Amino acid sequence: MSEIPSLQRAAVAALLRDDVLAMQGYTPGEQVNDCLKLNTNECAWPPSPAVQACLSQLSGESMRLYPDPMSHALREAAAALWGHPANGIVAGNGSDDCLTMIYRSVLRPGDRVAVPWPTYGLYDTLASIQGVEMLHVAWQDHWQLPIQEFIAAAPRLILVANPNNPSATMVSVQELVALAEALPQSVVVVDEAYIDYATADSSCIPALLTHSNMLVLRTCSKSYALAGARLGFCLGNPEIIAQFCKVKDSYNVNALTQAVGLAAIRDQDYHQQLVEDTLAAREDLMADVRKRGWTWPPSCANFLLCHVGPQAESIYRALKARGILLRWWDRPQLRECLRITVGTPEDQARLFQALDEVCA
Amino acid sequence: MSEIPSLQRAAVAALLRDDVLAMQGYTPGEQVNDCLKLNTNECAWPPSPAVQACLSQLSGESMRLYPDPMSHALREAAAALWGHPANGIVAGNGSDDCLTMIYRSVLRPGDRVAVPWPTYGLYDTLASIQGVEMLHVAWQDHWQLPIQEFIAAAPRLILVANPNNPSATMVSVQELVALAEALPQSVVVVDEAYIDYATADSSCIPALLTHSNMLVLRTCSKSYALAGARLGFCLGNPEIIAQFCKVKDSYNVNALTQAVGLAAIRDQDYHQQLVEDTLAAREDLMADVRKRGWTWPPSCANFLLCHVGPQAESIYRALKARGILLRWWDRPQLRECLRITVGTPEDQARLFQALDEVCA
Repeated sequence: MSEIPSLQRAAVAALLRDDVLAMQGYTPGEQVNDCLKLNTNECAWPPSPAVQACLSQLSGESMRLYPDPMSHALREAAAALWGHPANGIVAGNGSDDCLTMIYRSVLRPGDRVAVPWPTYGLYDTLASIQGVEMLHVAWQDHWQLPIQEFIAAAPRLILVANPNNPSATMVSVQELVALAEALPQSVVVVDEAYIDYATADSSCIPALLTHSNMLVLRTCSKSYALAGARLGFCLGNPEIIAQFCKVKDSYNVNALTQAVGLAAIRDQDYHQQLVEDTLAAREDLMADVRKRGWTWPPSCANFLLCHVGPQAESIYRALKARGILLRWWDRPQLRECLRITVGTPEDQARLFQALDEVCA
Repeated sequence: MSEIPSLQRAAVAALLRDDVLAMQGYTPGEQVNDCLKLNTNECAWPPSPAVQACLSQLSGESMRLYPDPMSHALREAAAALWGHPANGIVAGNGSDDCLTMIYRSVLRPGDRVAVPWPTYGLYDTLASIQGVEMLHVAWQDHWQLPIQEFIAAAPRLILVANPNNPSATMVSVQELVALAEALPQSVVVVDEAYIDYATADSSCIPALLTHSNMLVLRTCSKSYALAGARLGFCLGNPEIIAQFCKVKDSYNVNALTQAVGLAAIRDQDYHQQLVEDTLAAREDLMADVRKRGWTWPPSCANFLLCHVGPQAESIYRALKARGILLRWWDRPQLRECLRITVGTPEDQARLFQALDEVCA
């Protein structure tokens, strides 16, 4: 292996955009081998057996040939599942890919993006890449949506994770619709990555029929247990979605993911079981957390944002040393918190045994 | 399924970027079921049996959890294969994804991209998405690189597919290095998607050691028969590659693709056999094409750009009606040409039998 001489900083700077040099890359949650991962909100159980079966049956032809650029079969399955027209749905290489389509299609130089803060960190990273200003609007008390601040700021694009990450809290469809109606020249994206863990009728998909400036994101990474396969969807007005298809990577969803995604979506019985098992395990997790005196906002997702106190960081590090990952952020609003993903009963038993040792 | 009221054009325009509304999306080669596809330069044979075996063994865990964001195992395998440092390699969701990283990292408002023309159409689409001007510099006679025109134009980014698509011709490493040396403030990308079908020592990878403004793209879509899996690589100076990693989608290569890509790259015996079979079939294809009196530039790839004459379009359409797809473009330089992908001996027999009928 040859050694490449180290470039001078100035030489790199000459070849790349200043804003790329200056930006922070997104830091994904730690992926450490042989750890108990309760840090990135994956499903605690594997995907449907139909997924495994479909992989064994995949033909060499389906790997040799380019995939369907428009993921037609997936779009049709998603349309039937969510009651939205297929031509109002585009599939992405994860919903992160759908976010990229949105940023690229909507944001002009000088435009601003706004999010209630804190939320999913990737929204910031994408604003840096697009070279636009990001506005953090603090959540109101009890994670209520700061609607008036958004209306006053009138940004070009607003993103609301609903349920929110990292708080697991929700705002109502009515509030989100009111926001979209108050800002008809803005695009309001509702990222529903965790919505299968929330109550029925909490999705904004039905509102898309009458609000063309609203978009909804869905993912198979959480409740379908397919984070490894990368599959997400953006739903909206078909004329808007048609424009997104122009800016998406031409073969953005590979053939393997199209096949396993379809298998997972078609096995709704298994999906329902995954959700029920997760909600039951969340009850157990809450009971254990409550015993320690920690508090958390009401969770509508597969995780809890626990207020632990000043020892949050040391607990995070001590657990990590024992091979258990939770999520901790070195940020003002979150420094005393730990985010815990719902695990299997065995995962959670291991976590609380380790916590007993760590806190002893 | 509910119907969404059609949006007024003005309402769409108000929500999206003008340049996105105005741009043409990239038109991938047709993907038609149950056709003989000799139109998108896929490998004629399926991938290594090791790929199929690896799919059958994929665990539910690898699908449940997020993939390795940096595709470390793939980078190491690519480093060993191509003799380039692993930290000077980034994997992409196809090399199209690597192109997106390059455009986003390099191009500032007002910058220009240039390509020798005609070439791979996606380079244009990405320029539209990035909102920068694309300069088409006509190839010189016999598909020679127009070096002086590039130097005079001094664009920020130059892309050269080598071998070129659709001509299958190559330019020398010396010329590409001379171009990079003449324009030290420009980034020169050499897209080597088809290079495994060319002669040895025709790759620019060794030049990356000493030319930090050069980048090389590689793909598993062609000679590894994995177009369906979407896997490409960008190679360059490690400090440049580190910046690309900041703008890439955080989990850009899914876990299934990481696994099958690794299996395919590790089976170099099978890969070598695929390349040899392709080159042998290319000889047969050339012999058959020669009999028809068609001409083509010397091919260094798995396809021929045949000059067919004014009847090219009608032949293309007649073959399509018989379930055989070739590539034809309604463009001034290419209207009299058909691009034919190398097929299996059976594929090619079927093609020429159909051609006999069509031309009779």
